Amino acid sequence: MTNAASKITLHLVASLDGIIAKKDNSVSWFETADIYEKGATVTEQDAAAFLKMIDCYVMGSHTYEHALELSKSYGWAYGDTPTIVLSKRNLALERNSVEVFAGDLNTLVNERLKPSYKNVWVVGGAELVKNFIRHQLADEIRLSIVPIILGDGLHLFDQTLPEQSLRLKDLTAYKNGMVEMVYEIKK
Amino acid sequence: MTNAASKITLHLVASLDGIIAKKDNSVSWFETADIYEKGATVTEQDAAAFLKMIDCYVMGSHTYEHALELSKSYGWAYGDTPTIVLSKRNLALERNSVEVFAGDLNTLVNERLKPSYKNVWVVGGAELVKNFIRHQLADEIRLSIVPIILGDGLHLFDQTLPEQSLRLKDLTAYKNGMVEMVYEIKK
Repeated sequence: MTNAASKITLHLVASLDGIIAKKDNSVSWFETADIYEKGATVTEQDAAAFLKMIDCYVMGSHTYEHALELSKSYGWAYGDTPTIVLSKRNLALERNSVEVFAGDLNTLVNERLKPSYKNVWVVGGAELVKNFIRHQLADEIRLSIVPIILGDGLHLFDQTLPEQSLRLKDLTAYKNGMVEMVYEIKK
Repeated sequence: MTNAASKITLHLVASLDGIIAKKDNSVSWFETADIYEKGATVTEQDAAAFLKMIDCYVMGSHTYEHALELSKSYGWAYGDTPTIVLSKRNLALERNSVEVFAGDLNTLVNERLKPSYKNVWVVGGAELVKNFIRHQLADEIRLSIVPIILGDGLHLFDQTLPEQSLRLKDLTAYKNGMVEMVYEIKK
């Protein structure tokens, strides 16, 4: 039984040239020296209220392992919010909020996510995101563009996706030069 | 002698997945069915006034040949504005406003463009645009994103570019769902 009020958002941060990860997995390029005067500012309260609306995170196993690695320096990014890792591998689970789902994507969406969660965020990696687009299982793409060209790294998009119409829902520029585009994935 | 007041803008239209041309060269994907209510509208007068500020277009030979082909259906897109085609090939020149420049990019910029023009637009293709970025010969990138994922086609960016910091200068969403980002290329 699916729940029509449930929304699945693909959340991505990329360079202008569409790269979501550097080869060495470093994340310092997220912080640029740019200042965009006309941009919006986000207070800690705004950010906390926004994150509170997300009731489930979904990620692939490599993204999970990278998040675990980053958590040693910056803390676990997803709080106590239920986090589902899509993987057939036997992963080290260090937190009660994290579970592994070993089934296929369609089952995950229709039997696990839609009946239980209203606001699901898929946070990567590229393969998982492309599978959501390919099988039209996501409702929204939220892409934040960092003001940099990286040149070398993991490209989010490749030639394997089918043509897909989008509808621009929202656009925001932030003080740090980040541009956030929100698109509905038309079905 | 270079002219500091001269500005070179790389002007590009791409899908969300960074594709600037379909394999069959069709351009109908530029026109989407999207309507973004909050978007800006551009009157014909606005557009004409804006285009009037551009005093030189630069393009590669394939882009020129494609523009000639399109001109049979839609008219020549660049009016009487001086248009320089960078090519070592012997091209058919059908208009007085078009000239071919067979030298290198550095010479084109410093000896031909900067002394003569204030507002130069480089309109493609991908190789020429990447060469401008690679050699830091452009001042600005103006990238318009059409609300579509194409999947297959010619990607603007590839792994051959060096890392390049940008500064967001302007961001506009239009009524047709197009998002226009303007970045300064930091030197």
